[in-house]
Amino acid sequence: MTLTALNTAATPTHSFPIRVYYEDTDAGGIVYYANYLKFAERARTEMLRDAGFHHTAMMAGDGIMMAVRRVSAEYLKPARLDDALDVTTSVKGLGAATIELDQSIQRGGQELCRVAVTIACVGRDGRPARLPATLRQALSTQIQS
Amino acid sequence: MTLTALNTAATPTHSFPIRVYYEDTDAGGIVYYANYLKFAERARTEMLRDAGFHHTAMMAGDGIMMAVRRVSAEYLKPARLDDALDVTTSVKGLGAATIELDQSIQRGGQELCRVAVTIACVGRDGRPARLPATLRQALSTQIQS
Amino acid sequence: MTLTALNTAATPTHSFPIRVYYEDTDAGGIVYYANYLKFAERARTEMLRDAGFHHTAMMAGDGIMMAVRRVSAEYLKPARLDDALDVTTSVKGLGAATIELDQSIQRGGQELCRVAVTIACVGRDGRPARLPATLRQALSTQIQS
Amino acid sequence: MTLTALNTAATPTHSFPIRVYYEDTDAGGIVYYANYLKFAERARTEMLRDAGFHHTAMMAGDGIMMAVRRVSAEYLKPARLDDALDVTTSVKGLGAATIELDQSIQRGGQELCRVAVTIACVGRDGRPARLPATLRQALSTQIQS
Repeated sequence: MTLTALNTAATPTHSFPIRVYYEDTDAGGIVYYANYLKFAERARTEMLRDAGFHHTAMMAGDGIMMAVRRVSAEYLKPARLDDALDVTTSVKGLGAATIELDQSIQRGGQELCRVAVTIACVGRDGRPARLPATLRQALSTQIQS
Repeated sequence: MTLTALNTAATPTHSFPIRVYYEDTDAGGIVYYANYLKFAERARTEMLRDAGFHHTAMMAGDGIMMAVRRVSAEYLKPARLDDALDVTTSVKGLGAATIELDQSIQRGGQELCRVAVTIACVGRDGRPARLPATLRQALSTQIQS
Repeated sequence: MTLTALNTAATPTHSFPIRVYYEDTDAGGIVYYANYLKFAERARTEMLRDAGFHHTAMMAGDGIMMAVRRVSAEYLKPARLDDALDVTTSVKGLGAATIELDQSIQRGGQELCRVAVTIACVGRDGRPARLPATLRQALSTQIQS
Repeated sequence: MTLTALNTAATPTHSFPIRVYYEDTDAGGIVYYANYLKFAERARTEMLRDAGFHHTAMMAGDGIMMAVRRVSAEYLKPARLDDALDVTTSVKGLGAATIELDQSIQRGGQELCRVAVTIACVGRDGRPARLPATLRQALSTQIQS
């Protein structure tokens, strides 16, 4: 097994399909710029769900929520009505209370929008809280090198 | 003072201006059908605010929320980007725990969308709660005859 | 084969899964009332797509669009974050230029929201246009008796 | 007249009020992260409108549209239901076909969200188009030093 294969195994990029509906588009005939962030958030949620972490369970169990601290998006090509998109998500870094993710919204392998996001784990009081150890462990196996 | 004037005084229709932005439109070049309901909810909120009732204060004070039970909308003409709209709201009826409103979304006096909505007052447990007496009194002076 | 079975075969109800994300919810902790209409529109779009009709292709080919004329929604129970919903769509009637649909948004077999919608087929000029014969035929086999 | 006063006169920061409604919030009880970008776009649109430039008129007249190329947002404190916000917009730079803006979403003078956005002027074909001279002139008087 090559090193590349090992790396690939160790750093799976999560992939999530999105269909573009009328609600996502605007009068310019393209997806409204803020709505790509909805697509990205759906994909992050599904990445966490696939790893066994649900928003409602984390809130009920650990009293924690994931709050976006910083996001940047680069719009390369517009997505349009009826498009079948794919959102990839990879873990770029983990802090004590933060997760850094790189996300890419693509259509047929072509990148349309690139998103970088920093998420903070916060408690019921809105203050930073340490990432649960189980979540840290699950995500650390996915850090993109 | 004429009867009409009396009626007008007794049954003020609340009016609220809305501007149409890109976020409201879709690839058909018109306002997305579900977004008229956002406009209507903003106008209802402002009608309550003008009468002295704020959502957050009602929740914090009386532990109540306004939940939509039923809505119907008729789309007569499309609203478009940059349109300056006006949303009128009038009280049609009051139940023990419900409010019935008639709303109209207009542009330059022309009706574009007609909305009828029934709102229920619910407690923290989601169960119906009596309308606060002060709210009932404030709204009853506005019942459209 | 019983009559019931025949009817079931003749009147398939389309079903479409929806996951509830943060974007769909509001500060009341439940799905925002207008967003159920987004769910319903996604399901209608997929029903048409499954029958071979895509919005963009209909616009490019026949120069027609589907515009909502009338919608009513009854909110029975709230949907919440992380819920896995199912939206069923059945054809209730067909006019020369209109389609009437009954839709139901459910969670685990329990109905949360009931939607009735009338859609009009309109041309590039926004005026009513006859339903394409192929679409009429596809939908007429699905009329719910 | 002091230099500060001169600078203030020479670099007017546009200000636009926004009210937070249920539609803007999520189940976390705060404004959903993508919705701050809607607030920012409304404020940009009003800044252009105040300078005499309307989206629909620019499209009809010059065949141009404003498309977001890049956006970054930093979330400092959450906005909540019923909040009265203020969005300030200042021109940071002008390219041949691009506008760079700094925006700030505030509540009672406290910054909640900081947005930096690069907008491109594009033609009907989606390709970059030079900023109209009149728009360039109007915005250049607002460049923040």
